[in-house]
Amino acid sequence: MRFLRATSIVTALTAALLLSACEEPDDPSPFEGTWVDLTHEFSRNAVFWPTAATFNKETVSEGMTEGGWFYSAYNFSSSEHGGTHMDAPVHFAKGALSTHEVPLDKLIGPAAVIDVSAASENDRDYQFTIEDVLGWEKAHGPLPDGAILLFSTGYAAKWPDAAAYMGTDERGPMAVGKLHFPGLSPELAAFLVKERNIRAVGLDTPSLDYGQSKNFMTHRILSAKNIPGFENVAALDQLPPTGATVIALPMKIKGGSGGPLRIVAHIPPFD
Amino acid sequence: MRFLRATSIVTALTAALLLSACEEPDDPSPFEGTWVDLTHEFSRNAVFWPTAATFNKETVSEGMTEGGWFYSAYNFSSSEHGGTHMDAPVHFAKGALSTHEVPLDKLIGPAAVIDVSAASENDRDYQFTIEDVLGWEKAHGPLPDGAILLFSTGYAAKWPDAAAYMGTDERGPMAVGKLHFPGLSPELAAFLVKERNIRAVGLDTPSLDYGQSKNFMTHRILSAKNIPGFENVAALDQLPPTGATVIALPMKIKGGSGGPLRIVAHIPPFD
Repeated sequence: MRFLRATSIVTALTAALLLSACEEPDDPSPFEGTWVDLTHEFSRNAVFWPTAATFNKETVSEGMTEGGWFYSAYNFSSSEHGGTHMDAPVHFAKGALSTHEVPLDKLIGPAAVIDVSAASENDRDYQFTIEDVLGWEKAHGPLPDGAILLFSTGYAAKWPDAAAYMGTDERGPMAVGKLHFPGLSPELAAFLVKERNIRAVGLDTPSLDYGQSKNFMTHRILSAKNIPGFENVAALDQLPPTGATVIALPMKIKGGSGGPLRIVAHIPPFD
Repeated sequence: MRFLRATSIVTALTAALLLSACEEPDDPSPFEGTWVDLTHEFSRNAVFWPTAATFNKETVSEGMTEGGWFYSAYNFSSSEHGGTHMDAPVHFAKGALSTHEVPLDKLIGPAAVIDVSAASENDRDYQFTIEDVLGWEKAHGPLPDGAILLFSTGYAAKWPDAAAYMGTDERGPMAVGKLHFPGLSPELAAFLVKERNIRAVGLDTPSLDYGQSKNFMTHRILSAKNIPGFENVAALDQLPPTGATVIALPMKIKGGSGGPLRIVAHIPPFD
């Protein structure tokens, strides 16, 4: 009996220690940790594609009312594909998911953040390679099943200087040929849809395809598989390579081809 | 030594059992569970205040390009205060937080969902009372510190029938007097800012103040304390009274008085 009792005490102590160790992440919520906002602001300075309508905000009211209280309200307009935004798959694939149809399951998931900033800084026309992903996997293990795959080029630091960020600050059709910024190579896009299971792809440049793309093949490959894209994402350099969870919530435009995106990441607390 | 060994085995077994018990919520992510989308779609049918510019979407491209691939893109315009949207505190309080300034800390937190559907169905002019909150606390315990307080009137089921949802489908200044829908009483707003600590307030009607309000006192009380409001929220009847976490991400409009909101809730798995 003494043996059992002594054992019980040790067991109880061990149990108490372990329970207190594992209580922390469950209490008070599963969301303890750090949140990072990965979103640029929408303003007249927000960077838009040279041919796209830019963001505009007009004042409806701003000041004291007759009733004696302050009131402000604004109208706004925009194209769907400027600033931090989502490309819905229907942007480049007939019959694919439109903005309001993209399920939360494709918008919330484990982040895999690949740092391609060195190559992107050396070459404005850099296209991310299969080797960039394989190299990440060598260091961090296989891409999480259902990953939200994010490429950090470092170009977010150039925002909102359009010339520095995407190669030109000119507007109109003639400016499109002057776009120079990194994106995913079509070979990588094909590899991802065939060899990996990803929820979504994001990056901190204006387009999944690099600036000099003429056929937008990366968009077409990913869209055909109903994989949404997150473009002009901010602050990716603040995320760890693994362990963060992305929550990317687009404005719910019915039948849209994309739309403004508020994208955040949750980094769990250190254990 | 045998005593110690035997103890060690029991301890190790206990440890293994407890560790396996507490591993589950940590692996593979803190986000296991169910997600609920609390957002109405933006379309021409979305309900807007009678005097506010409605949502409009225009086609830029929709069809095959010269290059031989499908491409669709749209422009859109809207007032900030229609559909599922956030009221930034500056909407009704000079110098208070504007849309881009509302920190994630005010947008992500534990939900407290108060069912006021019976009184709201009986009376289109119902104003939620302090007793509604005290009654909820009697059943569920004190409001969580930093709660996102949500009132479920059941009116989301009437969306997008403006006459049924807010009392009139007429447009223009003369229609404002015909608005009839529930909201928070100013007494409750004053109680919440003085006696409780809440992050944000939301409901499934067009305004924090009830439809017949003439002085918008509830907005003014909450805005003065930098508490954002979530209006025209959907599907609140799908949330439990406690235990869900709200993530409410507005379009990041610089200097806005509000804006389109994508609001979701996470319900943790049953243990």
